[in-house]
Amino acid sequence: MSVTKQLKGPIVECVPNFSEGRRKRGIDTIRNEIDSVPKVKVLDVHSDYDHNRSVITFAGNPAAVADAAVAAARAAARLIDLTKHEGVHPRIGATDVMPFVPVRECTMKDCVKLAREVAKRIWEELEIPTYLYGYAAKRDDRVRLEMVRMKGFEQMSELVKKDKTRRPDFGGPGLHPTAGATVVGAREFLVAYNVNLKSRDLGIAKDIAEAIRERNSGLPGLKALGLTLRSGKCVQVSTNITRADLVSPYQVYDLVRIEAEKRGVEAGASELVGLMPLCSVVNSVRDSVKFDSLDSSRIIELNL
Amino acid sequence: MSVTKQLKGPIVECVPNFSEGRRKRGIDTIRNEIDSVPKVKVLDVHSDYDHNRSVITFAGNPAAVADAAVAAARAAARLIDLTKHEGVHPRIGATDVMPFVPVRECTMKDCVKLAREVAKRIWEELEIPTYLYGYAAKRDDRVRLEMVRMKGFEQMSELVKKDKTRRPDFGGPGLHPTAGATVVGAREFLVAYNVNLKSRDLGIAKDIAEAIRERNSGLPGLKALGLTLRSGKCVQVSTNITRADLVSPYQVYDLVRIEAEKRGVEAGASELVGLMPLCSVVNSVRDSVKFDSLDSSRIIELNL
Repeated sequence: MSVTKQLKGPIVECVPNFSEGRRKRGIDTIRNEIDSVPKVKVLDVHSDYDHNRSVITFAGNPAAVADAAVAAARAAARLIDLTKHEGVHPRIGATDVMPFVPVRECTMKDCVKLAREVAKRIWEELEIPTYLYGYAAKRDDRVRLEMVRMKGFEQMSELVKKDKTRRPDFGGPGLHPTAGATVVGAREFLVAYNVNLKSRDLGIAKDIAEAIRERNSGLPGLKALGLTLRSGKCVQVSTNITRADLVSPYQVYDLVRIEAEKRGVEAGASELVGLMPLCSVVNSVRDSVKFDSLDSSRIIELNL
Repeated sequence: MSVTKQLKGPIVECVPNFSEGRRKRGIDTIRNEIDSVPKVKVLDVHSDYDHNRSVITFAGNPAAVADAAVAAARAAARLIDLTKHEGVHPRIGATDVMPFVPVRECTMKDCVKLAREVAKRIWEELEIPTYLYGYAAKRDDRVRLEMVRMKGFEQMSELVKKDKTRRPDFGGPGLHPTAGATVVGAREFLVAYNVNLKSRDLGIAKDIAEAIRERNSGLPGLKALGLTLRSGKCVQVSTNITRADLVSPYQVYDLVRIEAEKRGVEAGASELVGLMPLCSVVNSVRDSVKFDSLDSSRIIELNL
């Protein structure tokens, strides 16, 4: 993390996913492309060997973030050949997904504009076709990422030839032969938060995930899956908090704990993947110790 | 709170207690004296009618904080006459206690130096004698505030006449006729944190306080008292966390909850008096959701 940079003014976060999680040198190259842009800071790099996929979290002033995003997509296209890529995670591009997130002094509308500009540039400057998703989508059937990406590169390379409705928003008609296509969009800040259970019973983890997710009248904006940890040691309820303003990690933990106890199982440690916003921390404290209210004005360092 | 000021560089906090908690105009005057000093920010003002006492929390660059502290003591001496002061809380001065606390880019040693300078100035500029306590004490028997202040102004005014060992560190030999003396010192950041019990049984609150305080192999640096809320609605375990680096509010809450359950009572809401440091918030989250570790580098806004 480049601790020397101190960013002022409006801040946008960008969280691109790249189809490379094994060759450290390749991931470092992309990361360095991003970090070399002034007024941009790399906050986190997370690589997964099994998925053969990396997530780089960076933030900065909007125009600088756009430049860094395009530079990263250029480097990824040079380094990654999807025809040779193996990994279990669905992916359509060397730079697979590229969401923009409003963080400070800017709105979702600003991020939609930025996403559309970057999507246009990736086609015009790199000849990689792009789709728009999330708040930046221009069609209702492209709001959800999985509806755009389908099963990924191989399937979509065929589909776009036969079905005009599958064509990219910018460029095409076909995908790039080695870099595929990139799905660019705008979304809310997302907290990736997982709670382990002291059990190896996958059915229980899936049951609890089912019980707590928004769809089933659980917590607002909460997505949840039950899975077994790669180590095989225990099962986990893996969640995405998409409304960090409304739902704190503590609330998720406590609900998982209660649902686990109903099933005779104990909740164990939990983990945060990547970063969380300040409101997740402050609201977790408020909820865990039953404060009537709490905001960052009660934290001394944030008031100086 | 003066939101327009943004402080840079080393920061010291000062938390003077004044023997006035009833006349709002008087408290406002002292507060405004402090706030008018450049590079100083008033963070909190807490007045208690019964105790007839106010606590003003302010912070800023060390030299500016010293100036504001002396200005506040000057205003308090002008506005408060201890011979006419009524209140149940022990007090020795118009400005009763004045601790300095290291917050950012400074050490306890810096605060000791600052406290001694301010104590000297309060005597030289205002003719109010001062005692040194806490880390700034020059004698072992003056480290603890209660050992310096004893039962307060009336008792100490008499004691200093008879007993040379009771004389102030600066000035004297007697106390100021209306402003008494001020006990100036340096200490760690202190988090004032209270947990309500769903009970009116004062004995239970006192039992729990007894069980959790450091003295009885409870939490490190934790001071705790059992008391009945003024409203009479319930009892409370009132604590001071003096090692916020080691003990989080959540840990206190959880321990009170466990001890209460042992006694057949439920823990209710809790409250923070004044401010807490960022580590109290971050560590509370770490402890409540069983993270292996957590620090502020995982909070996006604090990394920009």
